[in-house]
Amino acid sequence: MSAIGNGTNIFWHECPVGKSERQKLLDQKGCVVWITGLSGSGKSTLACSLSRELHAKGKLSYVLDGDNLRHGLNKDLGFKFEDRTENIRRVGEVAKLFADAGLICIASLISPYRKDRDACRAMLPDLSFIEVYMNMPLELCEERDAKGLYKLARAKKIKGFTGIDDPYEPPLNCEIELSLQDGVCPPPGTMSGRVVTYLEEKGFLEDK
Amino acid sequence: MSAIGNGTNIFWHECPVGKSERQKLLDQKGCVVWITGLSGSGKSTLACSLSRELHAKGKLSYVLDGDNLRHGLNKDLGFKFEDRTENIRRVGEVAKLFADAGLICIASLISPYRKDRDACRAMLPDLSFIEVYMNMPLELCEERDAKGLYKLARAKKIKGFTGIDDPYEPPLNCEIELSLQDGVCPPPGTMSGRVVTYLEEKGFLEDK
Repeated sequence: MSAIGNGTNIFWHECPVGKSERQKLLDQKGCVVWITGLSGSGKSTLACSLSRELHAKGKLSYVLDGDNLRHGLNKDLGFKFEDRTENIRRVGEVAKLFADAGLICIASLISPYRKDRDACRAMLPDLSFIEVYMNMPLELCEERDAKGLYKLARAKKIKGFTGIDDPYEPPLNCEIELSLQDGVCPPPGTMSGRVVTYLEEKGFLEDK
Repeated sequence: MSAIGNGTNIFWHECPVGKSERQKLLDQKGCVVWITGLSGSGKSTLACSLSRELHAKGKLSYVLDGDNLRHGLNKDLGFKFEDRTENIRRVGEVAKLFADAGLICIASLISPYRKDRDACRAMLPDLSFIEVYMNMPLELCEERDAKGLYKLARAKKIKGFTGIDDPYEPPLNCEIELSLQDGVCPPPGTMSGRVVTYLEEKGFLEDK
């Protein structure tokens, strides 16, 4: 046990079972796959497809869905600027815990601002934050409009909606970018396959 | 995908890989072991010993330590009444996510108020919240004073310290109570053994 920040009287407890032991047990390496993109760009679909594919390989993953977390951990937060930042910070902190637990944590949330995503990246050990950018045209997302939110945003019944009257800042250096192929959206399995290949190549699907 | 609370425009995404698939993969059942008690009562020691013993059995657990989380997820919170409640609520929400991920989540924090602990219990599916009460005498905890906090509290350099000038409300119906045996504190292995036996008897260490 060591003292950090005496003023606040909070100590740090180290446990003999650590990340490396858990990774060995799971035969994988903990990491965060952070899926960012517009509403309707297919983040949740990719998250599901990816978790299915990893499960089929005997790998343990867990999806942190931005919308779902707003019913629990983040239910005290709204959609104003500070709240969105705090929402993303908390998801980042929880994702970090899951990665530390040895899981492949799949975080799926719009996370429109570069600064907020980079803050989450900075929380994680080097290379274990894998940013996946769903680079789909606004027109396509708006056409899908599975949740009917674009319609509401265009009618000004929702304010500050990403892509309509609030900016989306595309990643500058993401690990994986998924976009249209010959003008059409690749099937979910193709997209999750890209991520699985990345994870395999970087050694996350084994503990060696 | 289903709409909940239209007013807030948040949807709920179901994923085909669910808790039962993850439990099968891990051959265990997700749950929360919530360790409550005074500062110095041995919560962290029990958490460590328990995670070690579970790991030796090939079971995946993860410790959420109240102090450690105050450096990350809960670093925006202090020690005033509302902040302590919010601190515990967030730990409860995260513990719930870990249990849903299939892990045996070991939460270790003073959590002095019954109401806050019961709110966490209410978040979890029936029987999967296992409250462990470290029922150690204040005198013993104060004598240990590993962090030097009782000394500060007695000198009134810390205010609202549990057991000194803030109440600890013992559980009324906890699943496991650990206390002195013949006037001495049982060794950590004996105490974690009690918890492991409980988990075994209730079927948490297999997926059947």
